Amino acid sequence: MAEIPIRFANLGCAEIARKLSRAVILSPNSTLYAVGSRSLDKAKKFAAENGFPPSAKIYGSYEAVLDDPDVDVVYMPLPTSLHLKWAVLAAEKKKHLLLEKPAALNVGELDQIIGACEANGVQYMDGTLFMHHPRTAKMEEFISDSQRFGQLKTMHSFFSFTADDNYLKNNIRVKPDLDSLGALGDIGWYCIRGILWAANYELPKTVTAFRGPVLNGAGVILACGSSLLWEDGKTATFYCSFFSNLTMDLTVVGTKGTLHINDFANPRDEITSSFSAASETQFKDLLTGWVPLPSQHEMTIDLPQDACMVREFSRLVKSIKEDGSKPECKWPNISRKTQLVMDAVKESIEKGFQSIQIEAY
Amino acid sequence: MAEIPIRFANLGCAEIARKLSRAVILSPNSTLYAVGSRSLDKAKKFAAENGFPPSAKIYGSYEAVLDDPDVDVVYMPLPTSLHLKWAVLAAEKKKHLLLEKPAALNVGELDQIIGACEANGVQYMDGTLFMHHPRTAKMEEFISDSQRFGQLKTMHSFFSFTADDNYLKNNIRVKPDLDSLGALGDIGWYCIRGILWAANYELPKTVTAFRGPVLNGAGVILACGSSLLWEDGKTATFYCSFFSNLTMDLTVVGTKGTLHINDFANPRDEITSSFSAASETQFKDLLTGWVPLPSQHEMTIDLPQDACMVREFSRLVKSIKEDGSKPECKWPNISRKTQLVMDAVKESIEKGFQSIQIEAY
Repeated sequence: MAEIPIRFANLGCAEIARKLSRAVILSPNSTLYAVGSRSLDKAKKFAAENGFPPSAKIYGSYEAVLDDPDVDVVYMPLPTSLHLKWAVLAAEKKKHLLLEKPAALNVGELDQIIGACEANGVQYMDGTLFMHHPRTAKMEEFISDSQRFGQLKTMHSFFSFTADDNYLKNNIRVKPDLDSLGALGDIGWYCIRGILWAANYELPKTVTAFRGPVLNGAGVILACGSSLLWEDGKTATFYCSFFSNLTMDLTVVGTKGTLHINDFANPRDEITSSFSAASETQFKDLLTGWVPLPSQHEMTIDLPQDACMVREFSRLVKSIKEDGSKPECKWPNISRKTQLVMDAVKESIEKGFQSIQIEAY
Repeated sequence: MAEIPIRFANLGCAEIARKLSRAVILSPNSTLYAVGSRSLDKAKKFAAENGFPPSAKIYGSYEAVLDDPDVDVVYMPLPTSLHLKWAVLAAEKKKHLLLEKPAALNVGELDQIIGACEANGVQYMDGTLFMHHPRTAKMEEFISDSQRFGQLKTMHSFFSFTADDNYLKNNIRVKPDLDSLGALGDIGWYCIRGILWAANYELPKTVTAFRGPVLNGAGVILACGSSLLWEDGKTATFYCSFFSNLTMDLTVVGTKGTLHINDFANPRDEITSSFSAASETQFKDLLTGWVPLPSQHEMTIDLPQDACMVREFSRLVKSIKEDGSKPECKWPNISRKTQLVMDAVKESIEKGFQSIQIEAY
């Protein structure tokens, strides 16, 4: 007997929803079931262009999607300012929630969203794809290995791309009423998550934004960075920008090892990817070279990271639906921590680069 | 008729002097002429073990080296606290000065050293080897190319190695009376120079140290970092540490291009080395990959970077001696700028992570 796939519905027709639709098709335990837009025509066009089956439901409003009792999962790529309203409503309608990042405008809003998911027994997960790439698990083995990596000391992340004039004028990510977190929410989110991932999700104690962030006329962040400091002395820095060539670095350094990856959030190739790991690196005599050299770890996967995410989310949902399992709390927890650090960076910028203490609550 | 090689004398027998001695031998226009130590036995042993010719002069004091009229160049790997006295004296004795980094305890002392070199018409250069690696010139072509790299926006540098307990107790670089700049002077120097190199030696406007530097009981810096901000909005960060696995990154990002190098100060192999350059990198549709991929530029050189430095220094000295040329002012200029930034990082740490304005004058 074939398993019944988990039924996904898109709320809105954002560009990124095209990618998620492909992922739902690729994932073996999910199906494209519905799409809703405020414009029925847009929803029809989206479904036709993105592989929705003829049986798919096309709705002219978000409410109609949430009212469909056969929708299991709502994927929500709406502008961040709309997350609170629609995510809470989706949870109340007992829809499992796959929420695009940045999760919310601030942790207060995110707590309402996560609270609604908990109250309604639905799974919450944000759309941070790289969490689900098998490479990430492989790198985690390396940095968790005290023999090869030692104790974590320092992390650095950098994520930029060159936004063109049209983007800088018209994209939702530069609009204060849509995605007021700008580059910090769009790409800084990944830097923060990468750093928290490396720190095994231990929150830093203080966050101090760098001077010289770039804001547009409406106060939306277009480039910024921050240093982070942990209770035990670990440190991290990150920088995100809409003004530099596409670059996506994560460097994690321990007492004995170094991890380098230059495409951490979106691999240069979705099937074959790599990372560099070095252990107990020493100079040769007279500094004429290094020994041993870092090793390049290449891996080939059968499912892109976006489909891995959908597969994992569907697995969790299926387990809740069919086995009465509880939702996996790891995903709201790390989403909330990412949001807490992001909020602190924003607050530090707003307060003239003061250090902001992070209270785990 | 064979050219007369430039005659080098080592002041002291520091470990790093072994490397420089090899470089003098490898360089075609220089010769090991003398070594002086406060201990004649140490000087004899050093000369015997490091390829000095039988005719080499062995002196039991630094003064004696400086009084030898046939010494052209003094290479000075003494602890930084001794630089002022001996570098000024060397210049006054008309010796060209190859000074190990960090150049001085502060820019005031360095100005006295550089002033003495100028007053006596001798060449000054600090021992920052990577400035002389042909790879550095090749990378400079890339980041200077507005077509491929665009306008410089951001830089990041990271240099660490794991110092063992013995080093952290006994090395001169953790002693307040010898090398009080600690990790900042020893390896932060390279990070700062790498950043200034990328910025075409334009000084930043402000320097703000990161919270959480590590100092030993005597107040010597063992790990620290800083953000830097330029008048035009360019930014940089660096971090240096004695507590993490050997790591040596320089990342330079422009509006159109990205340079990555993971062994910028001392290549992993002294003959064959590489860097990564990317231009106008874009995501493929649906973020399924990058196009074009960064290109790896590998090069093989005939002379290690230390010997390239000695060759260049000897060329300048020869030109002064034989053709009456003026000393090349680029080298004291960039040494002084490096020192200015280093001083500002130290001041920022001392002043509780205040932003320090850099005044070029």
